[in-house]
Parts: sequence; C-alpha cells; structure tokens
Amino acid sequence: MLRSYYREDMQEEAVFSLFFRHLPERRNFMLACGLEAVLRYLEELRFEPDDLAYLGTLGLFEADFLERLSRFVFTGDVYAVPEGTPVFPNEPLLEIVAPIPQAQLVESMVMNQIHLETVLASNAARVVAAARGRPVVDFALRRMHGADAALRGARAFYVAGVTATSNVLAGQRFGIPVAGTMAHSYIQAHDSERDAFRIFAELYPETTLLVDTYDTLRGVHEVIGLFHERPDVFRVAAIRLDSGDLGALAREARALLDRAGLPRVRIFASSDLDAERIEALLDSGAPIDAFGVGTRMGTSLDAPSLGLAYKLTEYAGRGRLKTSACKRLLPGRKQVFRTFRDNCATSDVIARACERRSGQPLLERVMEGGTRVGAGLEGLDAARTRAAEQIARLPAHVRALEPAIPAYPVRVSEALHEYAEAVRREVAG
Amino acid sequence: MLRSYYREDMQEEAVFSLFFRHLPERRNFMLACGLEAVLRYLEELRFEPDDLAYLGTLGLFEADFLERLSRFVFTGDVYAVPEGTPVFPNEPLLEIVAPIPQAQLVESMVMNQIHLETVLASNAARVVAAARGRPVVDFALRRMHGADAALRGARAFYVAGVTATSNVLAGQRFGIPVAGTMAHSYIQAHDSERDAFRIFAELYPETTLLVDTYDTLRGVHEVIGLFHERPDVFRVAAIRLDSGDLGALAREARALLDRAGLPRVRIFASSDLDAERIEALLDSGAPIDAFGVGTRMGTSLDAPSLGLAYKLTEYAGRGRLKTSACKRLLPGRKQVFRTFRDNCATSDVIARACERRSGQPLLERVMEGGTRVGAGLEGLDAARTRAAEQIARLPAHVRALEPAIPAYPVRVSEALHEYAEAVRREVAG
Repeated sequence: MLRSYYREDMQEEAVFSLFFRHLPERRNFMLACGLEAVLRYLEELRFEPDDLAYLGTLGLFEADFLERLSRFVFTGDVYAVPEGTPVFPNEPLLEIVAPIPQAQLVESMVMNQIHLETVLASNAARVVAAARGRPVVDFALRRMHGADAALRGARAFYVAGVTATSNVLAGQRFGIPVAGTMAHSYIQAHDSERDAFRIFAELYPETTLLVDTYDTLRGVHEVIGLFHERPDVFRVAAIRLDSGDLGALAREARALLDRAGLPRVRIFASSDLDAERIEALLDSGAPIDAFGVGTRMGTSLDAPSLGLAYKLTEYAGRGRLKTSACKRLLPGRKQVFRTFRDNCATSDVIARACERRSGQPLLERVMEGGTRVGAGLEGLDAARTRAAEQIARLPAHVRALEPAIPAYPVRVSEALHEYAEAVRREVAG
Repeated sequence: MLRSYYREDMQEEAVFSLFFRHLPERRNFMLACGLEAVLRYLEELRFEPDDLAYLGTLGLFEADFLERLSRFVFTGDVYAVPEGTPVFPNEPLLEIVAPIPQAQLVESMVMNQIHLETVLASNAARVVAAARGRPVVDFALRRMHGADAALRGARAFYVAGVTATSNVLAGQRFGIPVAGTMAHSYIQAHDSERDAFRIFAELYPETTLLVDTYDTLRGVHEVIGLFHERPDVFRVAAIRLDSGDLGALAREARALLDRAGLPRVRIFASSDLDAERIEALLDSGAPIDAFGVGTRMGTSLDAPSLGLAYKLTEYAGRGRLKTSACKRLLPGRKQVFRTFRDNCATSDVIARACERRSGQPLLERVMEGGTRVGAGLEGLDAARTRAAEQIARLPAHVRALEPAIPAYPVRVSEALHEYAEAVRREVAG
C-alpha cells in the first residue's frame, strides 16, 4: 500500500480512529492502556539496512521505493485517551493524524500494543476490585503469551492497581515493585521442609514460606515449629497456600497460627485465581490477606481478545466510512466528553473534535509532529493514579464484577450524527 | 533461591520435567513447539552490568552473589521432544538436567516460550486440518498478545502447516513466506473502489482484491469491470471476502466470476475464522479456496492457556516428588515410547529414561553441556515436515476436530510406576 501511495503521490493527511464496538461479556468497561508503548514505537520506527535488504529479496519493491523507506520517520499527531482511563464501546482510544502512508503503515503494531495492554489491564482491574484493598501480586510470567506480553502485562497490571510483580525484568524496566516467594522445587531439593524454611528465613527474615509442598497443614506446623526453635529471631511475614481448598485451608491455617501466638503472620493465597474466585473466597470469609494471580489474569482467560478496530475516518479533509455489513462507523476526528455529577460519571458523549461541549474531554494531544507532548510524556505512576481515581468515579454498578444493567450510557452528539449521515450519503452516491 | 543454593553450596544435578496434566477441552493432542526459542535463551542467558546494577538496588543481594551472577552461564543438558511432535498429558515435552541453581533460574522463561508456541501451534493444527489442504494465511498480528507472541506465533503456525504470514518481521527472521492484501482504508482513501483496484493491480498484477469495503457483490462487479477494461492484462488471482455471510457471498461471487469468464479467480475468505467455522463453511459446500485467519487462532481463543508445569523430579541422584493435592507426578528422568501399527500410532508408554523398550523414543538430547546437539540444531522446515508426518500418523479420531473418544492411550511403564511408589514412600516417610 505504501508503494502505491508513493507512486500516486497520495501524501495527504489521514485520520485513523482506534476503538472497539462491543465490550466482552464479563466487562463493564475497558481500561485504556498501552499508549506509552505505541508512542515509543512511533518515535523509534525506522527501516534499517537489514530490513531493506530483506524487503529487497521479496522481488516486489524497486530500489527507489526502498530508498524512500530508508528515510521513513513518523511525523504525525496522535490524540489519545491517557492510560488508566475507563473507556466504552465506539469511543476512540486513539486517533492518528498523519500523511496516509505513515498512518497506514503503523496499523498492526499500534493495534497489537494497545490491544495487549488494554485487554490485560481491564482484566487486572477486576482482580484488584475483587481483592478489596488486599495486595495482588502478578505471578503470570510463566504462562503468558511470550516475553513481550509478560513485560507489558506486568506494566498494565500495575496501572490497574496490582501491587507488585514476580517479573524482575519488568521491575528493572519500569520500576514496578518486585516480589516473589520460593518454589516447591526449592523445598523438595532440601532434606526436609523445616530445613528449607529455616535456611530461607535466615536469608530473608521477613519472607513468605510456601507450605503446600507435601501437606498444607503439616507445612503450617513446620512454620510454627520454626518459630518455636528461635522465637527471638522469627520474623516470617506470611505463609503461602498454593493448592487445595484455599478457603478451608486458610481458616485452618489461621486458627493454627493464632493459637501458636502468630496472629501477625499473614496468609497469602495463589492457585488458578481470578476475580470471581477471589470474590467468592472473600465472600465466604476466608482469612486471606494477599493474592498471587497468574495464568487467568495473564492471558485474560475469560476474554483474551477485544474487537479493536483501526479505521480510516478522514482523508484529505473529507470524512470516510466503510459501509459494508451494517457496522456503524463515526467519521472524522472526534472527542469524548464525560459528564460527572457529585464526582460520579453519569454519561459520555462522542462528538466531533471541533465541538465545544460541557463535560471532561477524554482525548488529549499526546504527540505533535512525531514528538511527544502533554500526557504523552507522563510516567507510569500518573497512569496508575488516574486508573484508581477514574475507576472510583464510575457508577458503583459499572465498577462491580457483575454485568452492569443498565450499561454505562454513551451517545453520539447530534453534530457527529449529522456529519456521519452526510458522509454516508456521499460514499453511497 | 539461587542465593540460597550458592550459600549452601547446593550445586548437584537436578532434573526438571516440563509437562501438562490435562488437554484443553477442544484438543485431542498438543503439538510440541517452542524448543528453538528455549535453546536460544539457554545459550544466550547472561547477567549484564545493567541487570546486576538493578538487582543491587533491591537491597537483597550482597556483592559476592552479584559477582557470581556476572559469571552465570547455562552448562546443562536438555532432552526434548522435537518441535512438531504430537504430545499427550503427563508426557515430558522437555527435561533439563543441570546444577540446581541453573535449572531453577530458567523455569519461567522456559515455560513461557514452550507454553506460547505449543498453545498456538496446537490451535493452528486444527485450523489447518479444517481447511482440508487449502492455504491458510496468518493474519493475527494486530490482536495477538504483544510483539513476541506475534513473531513466535507466526513461527508456530508455520510449524503446524499454515502457508504464509502477514507478519513481515517473521518472514525476515524465520524465512516464512509472507503474504498480504490491501486494507479497506486503502480503498476508502481512493476516489472510487474501481480506481483503487486498478492502481493496485497495476502494481501487483497477481494480487488479491478486497471486495467488501462498501458492498461485497458490488465489489465483485467492480473486479469484473476491471477485467472488461483490459482483459489482455487482467491477471488478478483472487478476491477477498471479509464480512457478512461468507458462505452465501462466496457462492454468489463464484457464480458472478464464472459467468464473467473468470473461473480462475480464486475466493479468499477472512473474518473471525477458526477451525470450527472453516469446517462449517466447507461442509456447507462454500466455494472458498483459501483462508486468512486472525484473532481466534492468534490468541488460541478457545484455549488460551495450557496447565504446563515444570517440576523437580530428581536432585543429587534421588527421585523427588511434590505430594500435596493428589497430583500424580513421575520422578526422575523419563522417556516416551510411541508404538505404531501399519504406520499409525497406537499408544504411548511413559517410562524411565534408562528403560529399553520397543516403540519410537520421543525425547532426544538436544543440548549437551550448554551446546546444541542433534535435533537441537534442526531448522524450521524439519519441524514443519515432522508435524505434517506425525499428525498424519495419529489415529483418524485423534486427528479429528471432534473430541477423541476414546482418548489416545498413554500409560506409565511398570518400572516407572514402581519407582514413583518408592519415591512417594521415601518422601512420605
């Protein structure tokens, strides 16, 4: 397509909008995330000599086209909803305004990165809500979809309110707190569970000891035994349950620890957890103080994908629409206005970008002429803070894990509706 | 854990086994994939100065431990089922034999990479089977879980028999054939659909034209109109349907093309396809010649994760087992023997590695002392060829998309069973 645009000298400004049409079944909102990765990609996108050499081998591209690619840089503007903002169907998460070859080329990676982090952050927001203030630790690395998913996922989880990650590279790269405990194999490799506990606690006095390698309650007794060995130095912070009936075992372990004079030792639980399972455990009164969450959050198992679309909505100053298959599309550059009452969001209006309306505009210019500006420069903590604040401002039934009935109201402004009709008539004619 | 092992001078040989306990609901086998990425990781794993500096900031590690990490290299042996081999529950996909600090450290990334490619290859094998010899093109990049998933996924799909990918980086990196068509936005940006078709076909005479931007059958008429403009130069190879009732539209488009004297123009279909939908289309007789498959294959939507486990099964020459929660584990180093009759696999036996049995042993030594050997050196085409051959040798009901009843038989050898019992008694005692 680029080769064609260059040949035809089609270099005029295009507007592409990134949005989704429907919420997954178990989501009342999506949490926008992944903008940082997209802006970095746009800043760094270049065709290196190796890349051009490979493209040359395909037998499709002439030398002057490849030469032109060698000078490719992204020089467009980006408008986006800042990371950590709750978003709803048909609202643009991001709009790119750039000469059409540029805006077209970046499609797949822009979608890939926003899709990944938005899907994962939205799942994590539910897990965090289910935990009701208790710490949640990301244990998902081992069964996520590759290294990039694990790294960007740890970041997305942190934006959504997860406390720490076991992904040390994510700690190094993004400054996210890292946390971890021992593995079963560490305990198995020692001659006895007690030895393993003692040695580990000597190295890391305030550690979490994994008690279910052989038998969970026997493991709890070993922790208590360790306390009795040297009550003066015992500072173990928590035990970890990782199998079996977590609710029942937590209750029994709590009772054993309390009876032994160890009410300050916390109970940490993991093992195939997700928002629903955490909610059920806490509803049943399980005395669990923190959660390690892995595969189900890491793959967003209940909704691993989102129907994100990146559509041309304007070219050379004229609104554009794809009209097949009855899919409603909104032409041109847009803005979303969110209205609040008593600090609670009441509804959104999707409007033309040029409209002046009441309410908080959600999209901001984050890149101008290929350079980051405004919210495009913000750090990870700003996104995390925004997520906490903006989720708290959603209506309670939209924040809840259960399906929101009625759904959060989003409507299209009259001006945008009229513009869409006019463009539709023009395209049809 | 490493710090503890170093302190205690625990450097003896450990055996870790990588396996899964259950097949996902809609899988009759998994296709082993991801070994190449694991071997590369093991070869290249180092702690660089930046990494050590970061670890230093955590306040957990003393200088001599970090210094020791700076010299870390993997020196172990790896035994594995070569890529493209069908595997079943409890069969080791891979076993690592190395000093315990090394074998322990690599756990998360070994799991992450085998999990990713095995999950994706296994889904793709179903898509390829459903397409019954018709080409399948990977269109999944945009909604996969990150850049690594997309790159490694394109590779896994190719191993499973997918024909080509739209992921150009995967083409560059792995030599996989690349393919792609135009986007709707390309057509929208032109003044008319016909203009877009004409210009694109001039640049790429044997291209595929996307016909559903405005109205699918109108799009087909535009292709036919293009043929009538210049029948002497018209060489368009295919049209692509990307929305609506693909079966009905394919039939109507086929009739229009045939009537226009264009029986050689093929029909390519995409739009939320997966194995079941492709099977249903072909069962209904839809005249579709090739498929573009995206999100559902790219996220393995029906089974995005696999309960892959990496367990210590031996340390310092003694079998080890985790015994909690009634999960059956098999100690020590193992081999899988697959028996064939009339070139069809009849059953597998999981045995101790030292056993001599009839049948084809599936695990091979692929790394020795940190250096690749044997199947560890093979290229991508060998894995692709193996997958085609070995899937063809499965019983027909195991290759089928429907649940295999009975499941493919896998049993544990008597010697391994007795060894497991002995280790269990020792651990319990």
